[in-house]
Amino acid sequence: MLDMTITLEQAQTITAAALQHGTEQGFNPLTVAVLDPGGAIVALARQDGSGFLRPDLAVGKASGVLALGMTNRAIAARAADSPEFFTSVANLAGGKILSVPGGVFVKDAAGALLGAVGVTGDASLNDEAAALAGIEAAGLVAVTGAE
Amino acid sequence: MLDMTITLEQAQTITAAALQHGTEQGFNPLTVAVLDPGGAIVALARQDGSGFLRPDLAVGKASGVLALGMTNRAIAARAADSPEFFTSVANLAGGKILSVPGGVFVKDAAGALLGAVGVTGDASLNDEAAALAGIEAAGLVAVTGAE
Amino acid sequence: MLDMTITLEQAQTITAAALQHGTEQGFNPLTVAVLDPGGAIVALARQDGSGFLRPDLAVGKASGVLALGMTNRAIAARAADSPEFFTSVANLAGGKILSVPGGVFVKDAAGALLGAVGVTGDASLNDEAAALAGIEAAGLVAVTGAE
Amino acid sequence: MLDMTITLEQAQTITAAALQHGTEQGFNPLTVAVLDPGGAIVALARQDGSGFLRPDLAVGKASGVLALGMTNRAIAARAADSPEFFTSVANLAGGKILSVPGGVFVKDAAGALLGAVGVTGDASLNDEAAALAGIEAAGLVAVTGAE
Repeated sequence: MLDMTITLEQAQTITAAALQHGTEQGFNPLTVAVLDPGGAIVALARQDGSGFLRPDLAVGKASGVLALGMTNRAIAARAADSPEFFTSVANLAGGKILSVPGGVFVKDAAGALLGAVGVTGDASLNDEAAALAGIEAAGLVAVTGAE
Repeated sequence: MLDMTITLEQAQTITAAALQHGTEQGFNPLTVAVLDPGGAIVALARQDGSGFLRPDLAVGKASGVLALGMTNRAIAARAADSPEFFTSVANLAGGKILSVPGGVFVKDAAGALLGAVGVTGDASLNDEAAALAGIEAAGLVAVTGAE
Repeated sequence: MLDMTITLEQAQTITAAALQHGTEQGFNPLTVAVLDPGGAIVALARQDGSGFLRPDLAVGKASGVLALGMTNRAIAARAADSPEFFTSVANLAGGKILSVPGGVFVKDAAGALLGAVGVTGDASLNDEAAALAGIEAAGLVAVTGAE
Repeated sequence: MLDMTITLEQAQTITAAALQHGTEQGFNPLTVAVLDPGGAIVALARQDGSGFLRPDLAVGKASGVLALGMTNRAIAARAADSPEFFTSVANLAGGKILSVPGGVFVKDAAGALLGAVGVTGDASLNDEAAALAGIEAAGLVAVTGAE
């Protein structure tokens, strides 16, 4: 199975739709980052009023799931079992890993990994909902680890 | 005089127009970053085929001019006079400063600083031309330090 | 007594057998690193689908045991007694130390240290089992600290 | 155009054939690294007698071309024009960029980027020749920037 990379056009569709979802739902200002499978930014947008660390948080949420090949929820379960594992990984990742929801894998219909989306700014489940709205708008498949 | 922050809408206009300029001119794939006056990303877009370090380079170009309040050309002149100055500043900045063109201040018509744009991917003067096209499309004022 | 260095041939035997063990057992995709006594990589292999930070984790597991001359379990016991010790060491090591199982010393039949193996990708004890399978396939002696 | 990721099987074919080329040609001991498009290691092999920094050099050669989307030769030309560009990029890349030959893009027959190979240990052009032998053995396409 081959991994492919998300395009800028797909990434901007995701970003726009995720922010629109947040606005419609009355969320706090959001920041959305879309990363390729290697963890590099393809598109990022920060709404007016979203704090200055938010880009790092959005990137961190998306980067963490790609770095480990594990969903936020799998990372959270692993961290609960073994806090020292999470600490070690966070050190190696330069902090770019978060265990809370809002980092979501993006796959194509065939299951190939295209990248990941990170959203931050509101409650974690709201952040995740915005990511899902974005990925759906691009016609792609989201993987969150939620059952 | 108050510094104001570039809006996401302005930043996305800049990003889109800068990339369009590069495409029309036949430049290599570009990455564009728009930062607020504090150096945090407001919008970033990386064209398909632009290498994975390009987001860091685009951010670094824009961040450097904001960090010192000096244009790329003023930084280059200072670095030529005193290479150790540039080395020290680059260390303090975690590498997020570049002396080559492509980091451009963005001001409003009254001269208030709104942020900076960084473009990377082609020759530095082409990168800068793309930044200027983006800033013009947003109806804002660019400051490059070129005479 | 001379420390000797694991050969590339031995390292590749270990890597292949560790990955085969993971595949046979149905583990998640694994990454395996084999280091010499100085902590430099001799061989590394990352299975398709193993996340991009996994090479750093595999190296970190093996490097940590060599860096301190202590097994993962001895490191974990020390960290439980004195968490600040682990924090300090992890800082000095640039994060390249982990207290979870999966970093295993490799010795020859006479007890001479040849290097260490790090495996990551599944539960830590499964990672360790893959490392043991690899070391056994090379006809060498594994030291994990498990009783 | 979609980027795809090199498989472990392809990477190990490249590594084995590159090292065999070096042995047949009587080169110094070599280290070969194969990276995915995001710069993470897929396979690495260091021949007996190859120094302990060689894995970093092999990774750096391959990582640099991917980071910038430029061949070694294009990087060298850019560095000759603008040494400060090279210095800045090297800082941002954590040193993982080299301008000498031996970092080679790997593409498939359709031109999709699969990753890059870095070889180090002998003269740079010999390193590059070993990389080319490896890529050819895997039935893939090498891009060096040489005319």
